[in-house]
Amino acid sequence: MSSYTALITGSSRGFGKSLAFAVSSKYPNSTIYLLSRPSSHHTETFNNLKKAHTDGTVHKVDIDFNDAADTDNPNNNYINVFKDCIEGIPVPTSSSNKIVLYNNHGTLGHLTASPPLSSVPIDLNLNITSCISLSLLFSSRFPLSSIVNVSSLAALKPFPTWSLYCASKSARDMFHHCLSLSHPTLKTLSYAPGAMDTDMQSHIRLNESDVEMKEAFVKMKEEGKLVDPDVSARKCVELVEVGKEGHVDYWD
Amino acid sequence: MSSYTALITGSSRGFGKSLAFAVSSKYPNSTIYLLSRPSSHHTETFNNLKKAHTDGTVHKVDIDFNDAADTDNPNNNYINVFKDCIEGIPVPTSSSNKIVLYNNHGTLGHLTASPPLSSVPIDLNLNITSCISLSLLFSSRFPLSSIVNVSSLAALKPFPTWSLYCASKSARDMFHHCLSLSHPTLKTLSYAPGAMDTDMQSHIRLNESDVEMKEAFVKMKEEGKLVDPDVSARKCVELVEVGKEGHVDYWD
Repeated sequence: MSSYTALITGSSRGFGKSLAFAVSSKYPNSTIYLLSRPSSHHTETFNNLKKAHTDGTVHKVDIDFNDAADTDNPNNNYINVFKDCIEGIPVPTSSSNKIVLYNNHGTLGHLTASPPLSSVPIDLNLNITSCISLSLLFSSRFPLSSIVNVSSLAALKPFPTWSLYCASKSARDMFHHCLSLSHPTLKTLSYAPGAMDTDMQSHIRLNESDVEMKEAFVKMKEEGKLVDPDVSARKCVELVEVGKEGHVDYWD
Repeated sequence: MSSYTALITGSSRGFGKSLAFAVSSKYPNSTIYLLSRPSSHHTETFNNLKKAHTDGTVHKVDIDFNDAADTDNPNNNYINVFKDCIEGIPVPTSSSNKIVLYNNHGTLGHLTASPPLSSVPIDLNLNITSCISLSLLFSSRFPLSSIVNVSSLAALKPFPTWSLYCASKSARDMFHHCLSLSHPTLKTLSYAPGAMDTDMQSHIRLNESDVEMKEAFVKMKEEGKLVDPDVSARKCVELVEVGKEGHVDYWD
């Protein structure tokens, strides 16, 4: 019998939450791990998914990708939490038992031409270091698996006020490209989900310092041109199913 | 009277050292800051350059780009050392007074398909976080200036055993591209100096785990096809002089 196991980071809201429901809908018997910071959103998404996912299993994992440097309590850092999580999952021995990491968490950061210096290590650790560390751990335990790196147009195109975000997405794309070249049975997909109608977009409409960009996003919202995250998530899950690799945009 | 000031990171050996001598040779009256970890190489390069650069000034700055987390002694961390350094340099008020940051330092890291997890934050902090932090500090103090991000073919092309290095170079290119878009009077050049005959190449020939890549580099060395770092450095300094921007390879 075939099985499907999905680990989704940053799953409490936005695109991560949509991914969780998309997986549940396509694979009713699947096992889904929701990995997010402890929060009311995390609990709410877990409870709602559990109600919907009656033929499968849902696990809630509290994990904070900011806390690598929690030297006072090393057992609590995200590396150990993630290790514990994946060591509890049996290693699939055939390709009909699918296991997928949706490496989705990240922060857009400050939307200014000169981000504060203190935000540089914080944003880069969260967006790059933790993302890469998770993919290394996951690919090492599950050589026969798939990793989705949630990417962005910002991985390919520079935006003047998104420098740390663009750098992060660019690094993630390149890292996963290298990883797939060196791990022949691992599939990696860098999926750019489109400009979606999520909290992240509200944040951009409020805080973007580049006037032209702000107006463009406000116009997209007004004209209903933002992508529905549920639709984009279903496309992403489908791309994984057919074994698509490399950088793929929602609009491709 | 025109002036030229260069700050060169990772200047004790290899391409950084070549850059220092290339600047000295083209701009005999220039002021050159050598920024490296305290080491015998650093002292030797400083002494040799001082002997050659008799019409200009050479400063030796001890700085360790690994020590951002030196919380016991925050005055010693590289951010503060770099701030102190640039705050001692007058801000140019016209484009005939040129100031250039050669952001050159970095590590190739482990040359394996699965780098050790502990190396991820170390390599990424050194290659990305410190590089970006320096460029932000520099561009903020010197809006009318140039930054050279020492890049690589690895910024554009994935190499299976160089995943952290490729990700780092890709992030650096993208960050500097964004920075130049948001800072109209700042010029940024991401210069890929070619596969050079330096200590880094000896390290690759000894430690590369990908057999094909190792053989390719050994062959380049044997056939004398590795680039002379002094020649590549002179090309880089010339590209800055003519105001070239974007990603430029030695072979372009």
